[in-house]
Amino acid sequence: MKRRKIYLKRYEVEDTRKIIFKTLEDLGFFKNFPSEVVDIRKSLWRTTKNPVYARKSVPEINISAMDGIATCSLLTKNASEVNPVYLQKEDFIYINTGNPVPDRFDCVVKIEDVWETEKGLEIRKPVRPFENIRLVGEDLLEGDLILEQRRLITPEAVSLFISADVREIEVLKRIKIAIIPTGNEVVEPFSLKKETEIYESNSFVYKGHLEKIGAVTKILSPVPDEERKISTALMEAVENSDMVIISAGTSAGEYDYTAKILESRGKLLVHGVDLRPGKPFVFGVINNKPIFGLPGYPGAAINDFKLFVSPVLEKLYGLNLERSKIKVKLARKLPSSVGEDHIISLSIGKVGKEYKAIPLKSGSGIVSSFLKRNGFLNIKKGIEGIEEDEEVMAVTEYPLDTIEKTILFTGSHDLLVDVLKILLWDEEIPLCISSIGSLGGMVAIKKGNAHLAGSHLIDPESGEYNIPYIKKLDVKDILVLHLAKREQGLMVPKGNPKNIRDIKDLRRKEIRFINRQKGSGTRMLFDLLIEKESLSPGEIRGYEREVITHTEVGLQIKNGHADCGLGIYSVAKIFNLDFIPFAHEEYDLIVRKDFVQDKRFDILMEKIQSNKFKTRALELGGYDLSETGIIKYEG
Amino acid sequence: MKRRKIYLKRYEVEDTRKIIFKTLEDLGFFKNFPSEVVDIRKSLWRTTKNPVYARKSVPEINISAMDGIATCSLLTKNASEVNPVYLQKEDFIYINTGNPVPDRFDCVVKIEDVWETEKGLEIRKPVRPFENIRLVGEDLLEGDLILEQRRLITPEAVSLFISADVREIEVLKRIKIAIIPTGNEVVEPFSLKKETEIYESNSFVYKGHLEKIGAVTKILSPVPDEERKISTALMEAVENSDMVIISAGTSAGEYDYTAKILESRGKLLVHGVDLRPGKPFVFGVINNKPIFGLPGYPGAAINDFKLFVSPVLEKLYGLNLERSKIKVKLARKLPSSVGEDHIISLSIGKVGKEYKAIPLKSGSGIVSSFLKRNGFLNIKKGIEGIEEDEEVMAVTEYPLDTIEKTILFTGSHDLLVDVLKILLWDEEIPLCISSIGSLGGMVAIKKGNAHLAGSHLIDPESGEYNIPYIKKLDVKDILVLHLAKREQGLMVPKGNPKNIRDIKDLRRKEIRFINRQKGSGTRMLFDLLIEKESLSPGEIRGYEREVITHTEVGLQIKNGHADCGLGIYSVAKIFNLDFIPFAHEEYDLIVRKDFVQDKRFDILMEKIQSNKFKTRALELGGYDLSETGIIKYEG
Repeated sequence: MKRRKIYLKRYEVEDTRKIIFKTLEDLGFFKNFPSEVVDIRKSLWRTTKNPVYARKSVPEINISAMDGIATCSLLTKNASEVNPVYLQKEDFIYINTGNPVPDRFDCVVKIEDVWETEKGLEIRKPVRPFENIRLVGEDLLEGDLILEQRRLITPEAVSLFISADVREIEVLKRIKIAIIPTGNEVVEPFSLKKETEIYESNSFVYKGHLEKIGAVTKILSPVPDEERKISTALMEAVENSDMVIISAGTSAGEYDYTAKILESRGKLLVHGVDLRPGKPFVFGVINNKPIFGLPGYPGAAINDFKLFVSPVLEKLYGLNLERSKIKVKLARKLPSSVGEDHIISLSIGKVGKEYKAIPLKSGSGIVSSFLKRNGFLNIKKGIEGIEEDEEVMAVTEYPLDTIEKTILFTGSHDLLVDVLKILLWDEEIPLCISSIGSLGGMVAIKKGNAHLAGSHLIDPESGEYNIPYIKKLDVKDILVLHLAKREQGLMVPKGNPKNIRDIKDLRRKEIRFINRQKGSGTRMLFDLLIEKESLSPGEIRGYEREVITHTEVGLQIKNGHADCGLGIYSVAKIFNLDFIPFAHEEYDLIVRKDFVQDKRFDILMEKIQSNKFKTRALELGGYDLSETGIIKYEG
Repeated sequence: MKRRKIYLKRYEVEDTRKIIFKTLEDLGFFKNFPSEVVDIRKSLWRTTKNPVYARKSVPEINISAMDGIATCSLLTKNASEVNPVYLQKEDFIYINTGNPVPDRFDCVVKIEDVWETEKGLEIRKPVRPFENIRLVGEDLLEGDLILEQRRLITPEAVSLFISADVREIEVLKRIKIAIIPTGNEVVEPFSLKKETEIYESNSFVYKGHLEKIGAVTKILSPVPDEERKISTALMEAVENSDMVIISAGTSAGEYDYTAKILESRGKLLVHGVDLRPGKPFVFGVINNKPIFGLPGYPGAAINDFKLFVSPVLEKLYGLNLERSKIKVKLARKLPSSVGEDHIISLSIGKVGKEYKAIPLKSGSGIVSSFLKRNGFLNIKKGIEGIEEDEEVMAVTEYPLDTIEKTILFTGSHDLLVDVLKILLWDEEIPLCISSIGSLGGMVAIKKGNAHLAGSHLIDPESGEYNIPYIKKLDVKDILVLHLAKREQGLMVPKGNPKNIRDIKDLRRKEIRFINRQKGSGTRMLFDLLIEKESLSPGEIRGYEREVITHTEVGLQIKNGHADCGLGIYSVAKIFNLDFIPFAHEEYDLIVRKDFVQDKRFDILMEKIQSNKFKTRALELGGYDLSETGIIKYEG
């Protein structure tokens, strides 16, 4: 008689991992993992089931960023060292950092820059509107995406949820894992044992690691090496858990039953892996539940556990955090004062062969960047700032392959881009968004500082969108992908109290307009519209008040700080504003050709053409998708 | 009236960190942190107070490493394909992996290599003694150091503690931290609030991170901006906690009381740091308790928290784990079979300008290496092995600066080296020990594969230790530092049942000797001693049975597998054996000169000359320290 050790389904390490993940995906293990709703204060280190949006802006009101006085910027307009301005009692209030700024004031003067005199409070230099004020929504705007689906809820996230008035949250349930020790020779730790028995200790390794990464585990009593008994214990464990680990009995010997039982009661998918130590590894499925068989030898078992079991939970719960240091090139110049270290949050991605880093908002009041960033940078004291394209060391907060999968999006923002962000994240592709306006986006694409840019720039002569500018700016090796036509119009408060009908009404002095920044498509459209109507900027109250997104325009109107602004229908809808449509504009994606070769571009195209995308666009409203996904231009 | 913002004690980031750590060290915060005894099964992720030693060997008995038969190697000596040996019923037993091997057998034959025939069990090739057996103590020997003081207890450590019969353990207590939110405008989350109030959410960031790294936290109710109230809350918190965090009120404004209160009630050490965002940071001490003041602005607060508060707990609890990938040169050739990935545990250190990696035991049965290693290596399938000095990518499991602080020790082992390991760890200098015998150690030093080597090689002609070999091997740029004289002699069971008096007794056939490996100082001494007595190796039963440490010799005798062996007094004492002394030998450290320049060498010298070292050596016994610390030779 000859008994050879034959592993039934033996694979290489990487193939084993692929089989495990493919099997689990086919079972819907990750996507359909059950969830539960918890109070936000109990959500720490859990994982979101769905994207989470801000229910309130952060901050919710304008607040002072300094200790000093709140006043009207207009009053300080003519102040100088030689001819100071004297403010009287009714012109200002004393205010501390963090205090709300009353609606009648629009700026704060630092306490160091005011002097109490007999003539009044002396001011020696003019203050700009909104200077030293943390504007409503500086960190987050009502309706903003705070965290995507299947993301770990860090303490920073909990804090931001609380500030944004998110009180409950749907999180993935804790996975229930049964651990079954087997073997005639093993007994529970510190129970009375014969000399030939050994304490079962491997289970404690699994339990310890699994509970740290989100599981609830149960170690069953050791089961002797008898097929029937192991089988019974296993089937019972399958009934009561989401996943089972069998310890020992995974080799191909006479008394190794794990693989055999999986073959007869379910599906044996892996038996044996080309790994030392760690060969006797088993993976299979019974009643749609994953079963892992780990070797009895502890050194082998720990290797298998770390390679094949931990990663499943890390993926499920979005725990794949890992720091490393890499060299990145900055996508834009970063000024920095010599007297301090500056910590800057970054979106890092690989464009072509280089790591590019786009700086995110990194002010004292900003928490959202800690959630959005995938890395950061410390500009040390003594350094005067960093030039665009200068190479610096950054720290990443995700493994390098996550960084390499990251798509950098810039240019003009649209709510459909947030939709794409969430859909791409279903495939674990992070989309990092930074809004710098259409024109800025084109330049970024030309310089290789992003993969994609959103743009809706109308050419006044031809009426054509984007392509004339691409030619003018000589942006090469790109294609223009049409995302949607969208309605542009004037957003006004519900019921349109000031009875605004068209652009010409902006001449009326009681109407406060809120503008978009130069270089944005909306601003260009607006300038074109007023030119047609022969309005000059000076005639429009608030023309010089600039914000940088549609959402900020909506919010200013909703909060009564402006009476109208140019924007898109979907934003008006979110803020429950009235909308006076003027035109459909074309919102396109400008895509670098080297990115078009990438697998991620195919996935992006799939997502753009998916039903989920269309459904969400219709829900948002104001979009015409008839030409969505068409490539309009290659150059 | 002019109110300028003046920070009282403003520093750079690095100086701030230094002040915090220096202050805490002066307070004895780390060294004297209170401890408690817990059941080993509840010790996971806690931190050891003291070094932990094995109470039993792992494995405790010889066990089979294969499925097959246990037999006597002698019986298989003449087996060949042409002339097989046939074992009869009484010559063997069937045995499975993990089963104990009865004392009368000394090897295991794999099931694939035996055939049941009518003539008996056919064996076609000879088997070496101890082949396919996991020897007693393969992973750990009774008395071995498992984990140093102030080390995190991982699941792997818990598992090894259980196997080594360590049932209770002294761990550092969880630190109690009070968090005091301050400010007129903050209210507890989701309580009814006025429009000008904001939810206090920063505390959740601190609480979340702190509890993850071992603290028990208490968030107090927000205290309004009134000096008396904040002071009262603070003093009460100091009374009831080990550390206090005050949130907000840390700037230098009219209503910023944190710094002021620290000045009047304790010691203000830092007020203001050159960091953006994060300037308004406060640190001080009240009643020997550290007090951290963090800014109210969340973005600033998170930066300060991560830079100044987290690291304190990470140091206290030994949590400074961080992976990175680095290129290392292997200190010795690593064979590897092409058909599998091989995972190898490593001790990595920087010798001169290169990272050197010494492979540790990495077998299926080994858990201790997961605790000893500071990195690992995966030799991928398809690679036939790695040459000595070949450069490979390794993964480190500690931050790079810990790796760079690591001292690599090799050569001959002595229990005093374990003592040095623990004393150096008090200064957070890891000493990695790999035992390869005196001669191997000298070669390693010559090749730059370690910083230090232990050696006790006697020159037969001159009777001088070590230096003649250094000259013969042409080891340059080193110095020889005398560590101790130690007694060498024969270890025999308690009461000396076989009445062994001197070396000549080894001629007696009933005496089973256990030998040390070639190249070890003890083996050389033994060969010299038998030569003097005109004994030939063939006359000594067990001369060919080699183990590689003193401790293993002691254990074999204690467990009755041998009747005597050459070793040192301290080991005989640990195993409660009798000891027949022959001579004092000189145990020296060979130190590379480039390491002598290093600060760590000064600390090593301090430790060698410390009272703690002497006291421990006297406790161990058998050492003469009269010349300890003397530099015997430079070359």
